Order: sequence, then C-alpha cells, then structure tokens
Amino acid sequence: MSGAEEIGVLILKLFVILASAKFAGVLAEKLKQPAVLGEILAGVILGPSIFGFIQPGGEAVLTFLAEIGVILLLFEVGLESNIHQLLKSGLASLLVATIGVAVPFGLGYYYSIAAGFSNLVAIFIGATLTATSVGVTMRVFSDLNKVQSEEAKVILGAAVIDDVIGLIILSVLVGIVETGTVSMPGIGKILLYSVVFLVASIAIGIRFTPFIFRIVHALNIRRTFVISAFLFALALAFVANKIGLATIVGAFAAGLILEQTQHKEHIIERIKPVSNLFVPLFFVMAGVYLNVWSMFEPGIFHLVLVILGIAVVGKMASGLGCVRTKARRYAVGLGMIPRGEVGLIFASYGLTTGLATEALYSALVIVIMLSTLIVPPLLKPFVK
Amino acid sequence: MSGAEEIGVLILKLFVILASAKFAGVLAEKLKQPAVLGEILAGVILGPSIFGFIQPGGEAVLTFLAEIGVILLLFEVGLESNIHQLLKSGLASLLVATIGVAVPFGLGYYYSIAAGFSNLVAIFIGATLTATSVGVTMRVFSDLNKVQSEEAKVILGAAVIDDVIGLIILSVLVGIVETGTVSMPGIGKILLYSVVFLVASIAIGIRFTPFIFRIVHALNIRRTFVISAFLFALALAFVANKIGLATIVGAFAAGLILEQTQHKEHIIERIKPVSNLFVPLFFVMAGVYLNVWSMFEPGIFHLVLVILGIAVVGKMASGLGCVRTKARRYAVGLGMIPRGEVGLIFASYGLTTGLATEALYSALVIVIMLSTLIVPPLLKPFVK
Repeated sequence: MSGAEEIGVLILKLFVILASAKFAGVLAEKLKQPAVLGEILAGVILGPSIFGFIQPGGEAVLTFLAEIGVILLLFEVGLESNIHQLLKSGLASLLVATIGVAVPFGLGYYYSIAAGFSNLVAIFIGATLTATSVGVTMRVFSDLNKVQSEEAKVILGAAVIDDVIGLIILSVLVGIVETGTVSMPGIGKILLYSVVFLVASIAIGIRFTPFIFRIVHALNIRRTFVISAFLFALALAFVANKIGLATIVGAFAAGLILEQTQHKEHIIERIKPVSNLFVPLFFVMAGVYLNVWSMFEPGIFHLVLVILGIAVVGKMASGLGCVRTKARRYAVGLGMIPRGEVGLIFASYGLTTGLATEALYSALVIVIMLSTLIVPPLLKPFVK
Repeated sequence: MSGAEEIGVLILKLFVILASAKFAGVLAEKLKQPAVLGEILAGVILGPSIFGFIQPGGEAVLTFLAEIGVILLLFEVGLESNIHQLLKSGLASLLVATIGVAVPFGLGYYYSIAAGFSNLVAIFIGATLTATSVGVTMRVFSDLNKVQSEEAKVILGAAVIDDVIGLIILSVLVGIVETGTVSMPGIGKILLYSVVFLVASIAIGIRFTPFIFRIVHALNIRRTFVISAFLFALALAFVANKIGLATIVGAFAAGLILEQTQHKEHIIERIKPVSNLFVPLFFVMAGVYLNVWSMFEPGIFHLVLVILGIAVVGKMASGLGCVRTKARRYAVGLGMIPRGEVGLIFASYGLTTGLATEALYSALVIVIMLSTLIVPPLLKPFVK
C-alpha cells in the first residue's frame, strides 16, 4: 500500500539477504564451520565493508525483521531448555556472570585510565565490555543440537544475570552523565523490575503450567497455534523491553514457560519454519554493522587489539565460575565472549551523549563484532 | 539495533495487530462469517476510524509485513492451483476479465461525465474501478478449502488478465497526464513485458518441471526448504514488480510453478505456519486504511453509494463471461468485486497528480474497501 517501487526495493533486499545467508551458511557448513559464521560474513560482504548494498540502520524494516529473528531464536532456545535444570546450574551461572562482568569492566576501566581517558569515559568503555549476547553462542549450540548440554545451561543463566547487571551499570552511567550523581532509586527500580520479571516467569513456568496449558489448549483453534505461541513470545519480549531488559530475555522466558506444557514438541515443530526464515536475518544484519576498514584507521587498530584482548580474556576468566557442574570451563568462557545488542546499545549511547568519539565508537563496535565473529569456529570443537 | 524504545513500540503494535486479528477471526467464524471479515474489521477498529492505534502508512515495517502477507497468500493459492486446469478455463477467464473491466470503466466514466467531472477525471474514476484484487476472494475460498473449485480457477485467471489490462489503462492515463498524448510505445512495452512474464512462467511450469525439481532438490539441504520456496516467490514477486505488474501476480506464478514439482505437499505444509502469521497482517492493514467517518462528509455519501453501485454491478456483470465452464455466474461475479492494492495504487496516483480532490480520493478508497468488506459474507454461501 506504500509506493510500488519502495516495495520492490525491499523485496529485492530481503531476497538478496536471505539468498546470500542461505548460500554462505551452506558454504560454511561444507567448510566444517557453523552456518552462522557464513551468515555474518554474508552481512559483511553485503554491507558497507564491501558492496554497500545494505546500509546499517538504512531500512527500519530489515532492522525490525532481524530483531524478530533474534527474538524467535531465544524463544526456541527457551523451548529447548528446562527451567528445573537451569536452576540446578544456578550457582555456576551466578559466579560465571559475576566474574564475566567484573573482570572485563575492571581491565577495561584501568586500561582506559592508563591510556589517558577520563574517569567517566573509562567507566563507559568498561561497561560496554560487560554484557554477553547469547544469540551467536546459542546458535552454535543449536546448530550442533547441544542446547541441552551443561555448558549451554550455565551460559544461558549467566547471560540473563549478565544482562541485568549490565543494565544496572548502564543506568548508573546514565544517572552520572545526566545528574552528576549516582541515582540509587533508579538502580533499585531496574533491579526490582528485573528480579520480579524473572522470578514471575520462573514461578509461572513451574507452578501454573496446568493453567497455561488450558489457555493454550483453548486458543488452539484451527491454524492459530503458531500465532498463539508467537504472540506469547512477543508479549514477554515487549514486557522485558518496557522494564529496560533486552527483548530476548523476555522471549527466552516465554520459551521456558511453554516448554513446561504438553504442546512443547508441537510448538517447536511449527515455529521452526518461521524462525528458519527470520533468524539468518539477524546474523546478516550483525555483519552489515561491521565496517572492517575503519579498523585500519590510525590509532584504531591498536585500540581494537587491546580492547578485544580485554574482552576475550575477561570472559574466558568467567569460565572459572563453573562450580558444582560438569560444564567445561573453556567452553563456557568461550561461549560468554560474544557481545551483541546490549554492547551496541552501550556504544550508541556513548556516541549520542558525546562520551565516545567517532573513533572510540568504531573501535568498540569492531570489538563487539569481532567478539561475535571469532566465537563460532573456536567454540565448535568444544561443543562437539 | 535501532532504538530500544522504537523496537518496543513496533513489537507492541505487531502483538496488538496479530492478537486482535486472531481474536476477531475466531469471533467471525463463531458467527458463521469468514475469518477475513473479522480481520478487516479488527483493522477498522485499530485504525483511525475508531482507536487510531495504527495509522495508514504510519509504520513502513507493518506495511511491508502486510505486503509479504499477501505475497504468501497468493503463493499458497498458486501452490494449490493447477496450471493445466487454469488454462482449461482460459476462455471463461478472458471473457470475465474483459467484461469486468469494460462495464465498470464504461459506467464509471459516463456517470462521472454526467456528474460534471472533466474527461480526464472521468477516465481516472472509471480506471480505478477496473482492477480486481483476488486476495480477499481467495482467502474465502481458502478458508473453505475450495481453492480448486471451477469458480476459483475462473476468478484467478480473470484477475491476472484484469491486472494486466488495469496496468495498461494506468499507463495510458499516466501518458496522457504527463505528455498530453497517448504513448503507444509505453503501452506496447507493458503489454509485452506482461505477456512474456506470464507465458514464460506458464511455459516453465509446464515444460521445465523436471529441471526445477532437480534444483529444488539440490537446494534441499537441512532446514533450507521453506527458505528456498519463499525465495522463489520473492524473486518472481520482484520481477513482476519491476515489470510494473502487482507483486502478487509474480507470487501466484511462483506457486503455480512449484505446484508442478513433487515437493508441492511438503512446501505447502512448511509455508503454512509462516503464512498464518503474515496473511492476517494484510487484512488488518486493509481495514486500517478504511476511515468510515469520511463517508459521512457532505457530498461523499452520495458519491460513495453511486460508485459502489457501479463497482458491484460492473463486476457482477462479468459473471456472464462464464462460458464452457461449470463455474456459477453469481459466485464468479461476486468473487470479482473486491478492489484492493491496484485500486489503491490508482487512487493514490490520482491524489498525487491532482486528478482527484481529497473528497474524491476518500470516496474511491471507501468504495475500494467496502467492495472488499461486502464480499466475504455474500460469497460464502455460494462457495459452500
């Protein structure tokens, strides 16, 4: 109903993205690499780095479809997880998350101070390195049918806790930038919302399963099943977003809850064709955001290397938190490395408030993207 | 990767649209009406007519998702049609299409002249009433599992021919407005492109089936099947759009071609969950575009009534073209009534070039939407 030409351009872009994602994914698998690596590289090739056919933030439609993709991915991961087993590895997750936030933040902060950045910018750089994005990691586990492994459980739990801690740090930073002081009520509010949301989801998942089952069953009228499940994921994604959490935390919670119903298998089977279509969009778009050439600008290359080192070492250290679990520390540490949406939110915030210069922003975005790019090939042998 | 707040708003809108589409669709079926009627009414309620929660053209994302919806619908209809059987009812389709263009155009033109409009505006009004949009009609047939009925075949063929004739009329109109004269090469080009596109699609469908089958089979690597089929539909939709045809003509052709492969059942089964998600979006958005209140503005109500009468009578007359077929004339005539995207393209063109005043534009859009709204309840008893 908008211009026919505009529609044509969007259809072409969608076609090219999906076709190249599919082609690159198959090619990566032929080379014994995870498909997701091929998809990210397809994005790098389509994006400003090479062809410039797709521009970061150029099409709101593609950005949103990518967001739906990552929501569906974490919804599926939730459907294939089990809440009781996640709680069992709760202590390990908590330790992994805490180490995985503290070490990158500390190292990032002290390096930045040493490099001559101001106290506030140093906090900003440290904070950007804290949040884990499990999209890529879970895709590797999912590609290898290992979503139910001990490592995946620890990482999922840790990433959720990470997300909450990261958001608290961000709100502290926002408070300092805006008012010059630390806002304790603001921190309290985010903490309260997050805990209430997660505990409520978990409680519902464990206690109200029969009730939810009846609702889902009542809604199970002709060809509405996939929509009901999808709507549930969207609803929790929206609530998470409203609270200030990442949408994917809500989608993951929705999956966890529906996993407790008898319809689990049916939902997974019906949601797969939909997610197969959307999920690659997220990874292609992640590749589009990576401009490989800005890495070679003067001063940036060194900065990228050091920050990347901190980002990798900091999260590898988090593997040491694996206590009372069979999860291997290397695999967990590797799986915690990718930074994604949350890191990008931090970086964008820094750019818009003037905390980060263009160069610092580019360096951080490149680190975020490299952290995502290096994980699949490194992690794959450990997951197998 | 865009603003978290923006993403939140879009997720909420998508949730509300899908949830109300599902609710209204189920309610309509409980009242023995087609689900599509409920979905359109859900759009009217969400749109500016009542709540103003969704604005026409407000979100490019929703407009595009709706477009994907109607592409998937016609792709499915193609998959459930058969090219040989469509050709069998070719004569009836041609006659139905010709009458269905000539009568509304003639009546619309003469009424407009009588009402004091200029010659050019009269041509514009007549032309706007010509093109049939089979989305709603095919949804009624599809809801009742009657896509393979004689009536559906005649209507599908006629709608494709209609679309081509409608585009020729539009290009003539554009030519007159822009140059003051009729551009014969322009008309020839569109006619040539359209015929080549359709004949090529049909030829491929009939002759190259084994070859296509091998390609599809070769592409049938793990979890890529639904993407391959979807990509094929997108590709032909894009080609149709480039030629100047409606995207849905390309999607329908893609479905027709894949119907000839052995994978037909598998594709239908895997594409259904995807289309169940997208198709309702199209019909909700169609409802959003309908502002029921503008109908009661002075002068508009009368205009709407007369033009609606012409739109209905003109297409009902097209049912007389049913020769050498068992298709019932009433059902075919009713099925040809809905105007949709193509009619809206005409109306928008009129508004932007100044051919149509705001009032005339509103009247035409209301007629287009009413023509869509009245068909499901009228058609349902005939299809059953």
